[in-house]
Amino acid sequence: MTISRADCLALDADDPLRRFRDEFVLPDGTVYLVGNSLGALSRTAAAATARVVAEEWGGQLVGGWNASGWFDLPLTTGDRLAPLIGAGPGQVVVGDTTSIAIVKAVSAALRLRPERRVIVSDTANFPTDRYVVQGLVGSLGGYEIRDIDGPDALDAALSDDVACVLLSEVDYRTGARLDTAEVTARVRGAGALMIWDLCHSAGAYQVDVAEADFAVGCTYKYLNGGPGAPAFLYANPRHHADAESILTGWHGHAAPFAFEPAYRPAEGVRRFSVGTPHVLSFAPLNASLDIWERVDMAQVRAKSVALTSLFIDLVEESCAPYGLELVSPRDPERRGSQVSFRHPDGYPVMRALIDRGVHGDFRAPDLLRFGFAPLYIGFADVHDAATALAEVLGKELWRDERYRRRLAVT
Amino acid sequence: MTISRADCLALDADDPLRRFRDEFVLPDGTVYLVGNSLGALSRTAAAATARVVAEEWGGQLVGGWNASGWFDLPLTTGDRLAPLIGAGPGQVVVGDTTSIAIVKAVSAALRLRPERRVIVSDTANFPTDRYVVQGLVGSLGGYEIRDIDGPDALDAALSDDVACVLLSEVDYRTGARLDTAEVTARVRGAGALMIWDLCHSAGAYQVDVAEADFAVGCTYKYLNGGPGAPAFLYANPRHHADAESILTGWHGHAAPFAFEPAYRPAEGVRRFSVGTPHVLSFAPLNASLDIWERVDMAQVRAKSVALTSLFIDLVEESCAPYGLELVSPRDPERRGSQVSFRHPDGYPVMRALIDRGVHGDFRAPDLLRFGFAPLYIGFADVHDAATALAEVLGKELWRDERYRRRLAVT
Repeated sequence: MTISRADCLALDADDPLRRFRDEFVLPDGTVYLVGNSLGALSRTAAAATARVVAEEWGGQLVGGWNASGWFDLPLTTGDRLAPLIGAGPGQVVVGDTTSIAIVKAVSAALRLRPERRVIVSDTANFPTDRYVVQGLVGSLGGYEIRDIDGPDALDAALSDDVACVLLSEVDYRTGARLDTAEVTARVRGAGALMIWDLCHSAGAYQVDVAEADFAVGCTYKYLNGGPGAPAFLYANPRHHADAESILTGWHGHAAPFAFEPAYRPAEGVRRFSVGTPHVLSFAPLNASLDIWERVDMAQVRAKSVALTSLFIDLVEESCAPYGLELVSPRDPERRGSQVSFRHPDGYPVMRALIDRGVHGDFRAPDLLRFGFAPLYIGFADVHDAATALAEVLGKELWRDERYRRRLAVT
Repeated sequence: MTISRADCLALDADDPLRRFRDEFVLPDGTVYLVGNSLGALSRTAAAATARVVAEEWGGQLVGGWNASGWFDLPLTTGDRLAPLIGAGPGQVVVGDTTSIAIVKAVSAALRLRPERRVIVSDTANFPTDRYVVQGLVGSLGGYEIRDIDGPDALDAALSDDVACVLLSEVDYRTGARLDTAEVTARVRGAGALMIWDLCHSAGAYQVDVAEADFAVGCTYKYLNGGPGAPAFLYANPRHHADAESILTGWHGHAAPFAFEPAYRPAEGVRRFSVGTPHVLSFAPLNASLDIWERVDMAQVRAKSVALTSLFIDLVEESCAPYGLELVSPRDPERRGSQVSFRHPDGYPVMRALIDRGVHGDFRAPDLLRFGFAPLYIGFADVHDAATALAEVLGKELWRDERYRRRLAVT
């Protein structure tokens, strides 16, 4: 390869984010390029979780709701997360799952635009985004889902009966990144509300929700909140007085402990809280946010672009004869922190890569996905991953029927 | 008191459940009678949570979804919980919150009875139960909530347009317990579906969902699953093929990783799963279920009846002059594992009790609630609590304006 592993080690040595790598637990001999699916465990997350269990639950018991601020976790954690997506304090609430958060945002949008009956959704949206909208519309009746194939089809879909548009900033398959400001302006210009799914962008770089109406996302990918860490929901302040979700639980009530007979939404974004927060699942997320507070997001983005660009260059250089096709945008401005290639034998190729300690993931029918979390992935990792991929494809071991059978059963 | 503390210590010595007390962490000098709100931490829960964080998340990273069974946690945990509520395997799914679980059950019930447009709900239901139904009905349109004041009003409310009835087996304020089999038979006899909220019964004694259509509940009270532990939802097998909730996320899809364009519900109760499970919040719940597997529920109920009956007797004996009024049913068959008294100065009385290490809780305007978790509360605790209550009421310290002011600000 034109760039050697030694070159990459030199890049790592100069990396201003290098110091964060040691704050994460990564198994020996593993190049973990699945941080776009589940972020790595930070060393402080384990201690923080143990402390919440032993000191807060064990030591304070039910008193922890006040003494340890459990009751306000959805908001205090939201305030800490807000800067990462360009939001301000009191605009983000954390809890539930991304699926539930989408139900909240879409149902609120429909009530804010009662005369409009169409929800525009992209076929590239993550499946659960589509499923929950289908479930909502199936029960509500009188609404139509207008599926588009990519943002180019957006303008044609933006008729004056569109209530809201639900899109992902970064495509979970291709890593393609949309211009949120530009798309939001178009959608709002058409009188519809813009809802962003930030699952694959939050923590990958500095997100800017800007003029968006709502945004949702998960915290267990680039944000390293832990498996099943709670989701977040951003609501633009312009909707804080009027937006009402279909999900109206006591933690979203204006006076949750007054036990009033009728639901009365809390002021601000708290109204999007529903049930009792999953306290333990907040612990590692808050430990991770301690790390994020020390991170320069401009450095994160610069490194992300460098890592993904280098991976594309090295793979294309060393794997040219092997039928790989780049699926991610070549222009780094149009790319998240993920690189995807297509290969007809993608599944056994990925299994063979994992056997070599390089962890990406495979999405049927032929997609190889590699995520680059700039806090703990380095340039030598990129070199190792590209080298392993070239070896796997070059050795043709994976073409052997017995080997492929073994991969399929392990 | 006619029964001495020594008598109570003798009862504790003979208690077949005594051995479980040492498995829980209870702060020194505390009589914890709030297990009906947040159950105590078991010693194994802390270790189990630490193991999930370090070994599963840290060691397996994204591989934990398969290697550690995270993906199936809602069902495997549900199967373990099922016997405690009289359900069988494949009938209970764990996840989300009670509020969300109620939305699932009620929305599914409405679709199963499309020609009926009334939801019967009790004003004694926990507020969030009422709020989420209000939110659902407010968005769906065309439905009516028929609030009744107690189960005596049920028959009059059961007209032939009632789709479902949502009741709590145990009243969170009074501890009054309904006869679920009898009520379910009446509701189903009227052609409506029965949905039980088991928040205050699961883990307090052997519940029997029997012929109920749906049941929901939390796992952080008597089940000791930890603060914000995920909720459970039971669906009677008669509805497994047809029931569809309004909340249709990818974890409830028949093929969640096939990424099909349209939602297609999974077989069985898995269809009520929605988003990514909060993995860490399942850890202490499963540790607690390890304990429950060793527990004889007949012993739990016998001890619960003995504890609550003794508390009523001792309090009435020693506090007779002080204006306490028993709110809970005197008949143990009609009572959960909780005793509530009314007192006009309930708030300062409870604060003074807590100052003495006896932890109950207060619900406005005048309710003193005491929960008795038979796994870790003993007869001497009951004696100590009754003694402290008599002291507080007898000393009249709490009538002192300065003391009450101090209590109000601390």
